[in-house]
Amino acid sequence: MIDVKWIVPTSAVGGPTNGLVGRIDLGLDPDLLATAADALLMRHPLIFDQTRQLALQVRPGSHDPWYESCYQEKDIAPETEYSELNPELRGTYFEEAFDSFPFPLFRARLLALDARTCYSVHRDDTARLHVAIKTSEHAPFVFVERNEVFRVPADGNAYLLDTTEVHTAMNGARELRLHLVAGAAWDAMAMTDELGGQSN
Amino acid sequence: MIDVKWIVPTSAVGGPTNGLVGRIDLGLDPDLLATAADALLMRHPLIFDQTRQLALQVRPGSHDPWYESCYQEKDIAPETEYSELNPELRGTYFEEAFDSFPFPLFRARLLALDARTCYSVHRDDTARLHVAIKTSEHAPFVFVERNEVFRVPADGNAYLLDTTEVHTAMNGARELRLHLVAGAAWDAMAMTDELGGQSN
Repeated sequence: MIDVKWIVPTSAVGGPTNGLVGRIDLGLDPDLLATAADALLMRHPLIFDQTRQLALQVRPGSHDPWYESCYQEKDIAPETEYSELNPELRGTYFEEAFDSFPFPLFRARLLALDARTCYSVHRDDTARLHVAIKTSEHAPFVFVERNEVFRVPADGNAYLLDTTEVHTAMNGARELRLHLVAGAAWDAMAMTDELGGQSN
Repeated sequence: MIDVKWIVPTSAVGGPTNGLVGRIDLGLDPDLLATAADALLMRHPLIFDQTRQLALQVRPGSHDPWYESCYQEKDIAPETEYSELNPELRGTYFEEAFDSFPFPLFRARLLALDARTCYSVHRDDTARLHVAIKTSEHAPFVFVERNEVFRVPADGNAYLLDTTEVHTAMNGARELRLHLVAGAAWDAMAMTDELGGQSN
């Protein structure tokens, strides 16, 4: 059983999660995460205007591992195919972070949101996991139609957000916001009896 | 008595308004407003990166009427001094719009928010009136600490927002958002018996 502590309930019926926002305790060290991210971004820059990204998981044998999964879902392979840790990350704190999840991840990326920018309001196909690496109280998720504002703390834990609801994220601070974002390979199983997201 | 229809209540005690968001029915024509704004912006461009502005009210005899009030509050004259309609706007639909308010305005400006940008999270010194000229369902106000998301409709009415609460606005759409924003000269009187913002 995967232990998800639901923080914000959902009104959706039959959605991929049992809540709008839930926490999965990982106990990662936020400082080590930030240091690992700084070291990585010195070697591999973030690309794409505003939605700046770097891929942490790849398809086996990819020729463009750092950026291949960083396009819109309609322009890339099925998300679950990006399932291997980028070989260059072996032995780094990112590998430890990935191993701390109680289920496999897919299409994990670093997503940076520049100061005073926001994403288009949209829905994703699946729920998403977020680990905040650099953030502030001024960089919330906004579930526009649900009237919910949620700030993911950089506390070394993962937050499961039901991003199949209409949402955006914004950064009203002066510094960049940096999140590790991934799909959870248990998504499709979350509503079964065996592996349901536990509601606490 | 000024008739404010409170839409979102407030928990603040002794604040400048009796609610977080209220509507003041003006019955303006949204199309005429948009047309007047388009004509104006062809003559006078918006300036300032991200928080792009154009002043509609000026100090008497200003040498820089269109932009003088468009800096941070700490860098301009007291806001209430920007109280005269910019002479070039006489006879336009803006003059009609200003006259439709049941109280005087000050420091009225056009504020544009570019696609996929947001303001810094902040508090203002006073409540603000907003008339949406161009907007979408994806461009809400976010009261970050109050967990309230509010979308000002472009319906020809004014919305009073208690912007002394921590807030921002974001534009998660692909088109520019354009609002007429002003201070209400009844702010200081709003909590008196004579001119209290009426709670409906």
